[in-house]
Amino acid sequence: MTDELTKGERTRKKLVETTASLLRCQGYHATGLSQIVAASGAPRGSLYFHFPGGKDDLATAALEASGEAWRARLLDSIAGAADLGSALGTIVGALADDLEASGWDHGCPVAAVALESTSAPVRRTIARHFESLLELIVELLIGHGIAPPLAREQALIGLAGIEGALLLARVMRSRAPLVAMGRALQAMVAPAV
Amino acid sequence: MTDELTKGERTRKKLVETTASLLRCQGYHATGLSQIVAASGAPRGSLYFHFPGGKDDLATAALEASGEAWRARLLDSIAGAADLGSALGTIVGALADDLEASGWDHGCPVAAVALESTSAPVRRTIARHFESLLELIVELLIGHGIAPPLAREQALIGLAGIEGALLLARVMRSRAPLVAMGRALQAMVAPAV
Repeated sequence: MTDELTKGERTRKKLVETTASLLRCQGYHATGLSQIVAASGAPRGSLYFHFPGGKDDLATAALEASGEAWRARLLDSIAGAADLGSALGTIVGALADDLEASGWDHGCPVAAVALESTSAPVRRTIARHFESLLELIVELLIGHGIAPPLAREQALIGLAGIEGALLLARVMRSRAPLVAMGRALQAMVAPAV
Repeated sequence: MTDELTKGERTRKKLVETTASLLRCQGYHATGLSQIVAASGAPRGSLYFHFPGGKDDLATAALEASGEAWRARLLDSIAGAADLGSALGTIVGALADDLEASGWDHGCPVAAVALESTSAPVRRTIARHFESLLELIVELLIGHGIAPPLAREQALIGLAGIEGALLLARVMRSRAPLVAMGRALQAMVAPAV
């Protein structure tokens, strides 16, 4: 029984990961259930077993998994850094490396869907992801001595700045927008001398 | 003959405007030729007459028209403003008004397509649009006494910042990201005291 459960969990994980990757590169509308089944190698029946609500169910799970992975990555970068400025440098550098290594395909895992999905539950999932990222950044900034209202403002600027720089970098096939935004955000969080 | 030409031009314009609006709200993949024909009221034959290359041809024309309209809008805001800071305030306020008035649907007219279209000509059209916006912003900044390398860096930060803030504002259904980014960009271009 345990083995069978594990197999089911593996299949579910494969479906979620395949969907997350397709949503990241081509958005919501282009990603069909047949493509997910084909790319994941999972049996079609297992899709409806794990995600009875179909595409929106699966997309929601995939976006949640992507969001969680990015929050973990953000925390890792911060934990390993001497200060906020060098953490920002690490994060922006890693995002640019990923994007360039993927042939300028791997931007933010939720942004494409954010802009073109017309599904209300999908939009709410992405809004929750952004809100939880913002809360995480606010906490970090407050931990570095920044007052709460300013921390919220800087978190919005930081998250929006990185999202926009990823979008521009992807379309322009250039690290320059991320490099420029990284410097601007480092200046923003630098302690006043 | 002139009348017939004018009618043809009107039909072409209607096709381009309908496509631009659909691409803005739902991106490239969700926008089908049948939907464009239905929403524009144009005869299907006229679509292939004006855009023999089909969807990519029409999408390219629509994105170019959107890009041109936004460049004109940017120039208008600058022309009517006392300085760069108040021009930025006007631009960000107008973007937030549009987005809110549309039920949080009308963000950047090219961003959704930028993130999910897998068509090379479409991507190149968007890259050209961003490059021409950047050149326009660089020129404006240089005209305000900013040195060329810094002007390019600030243009990248400004364009990426606005794109990201529009994305966040749309998903979060809130003006806050645009308001915060507007203030950050105003501080960036404020003359040092």
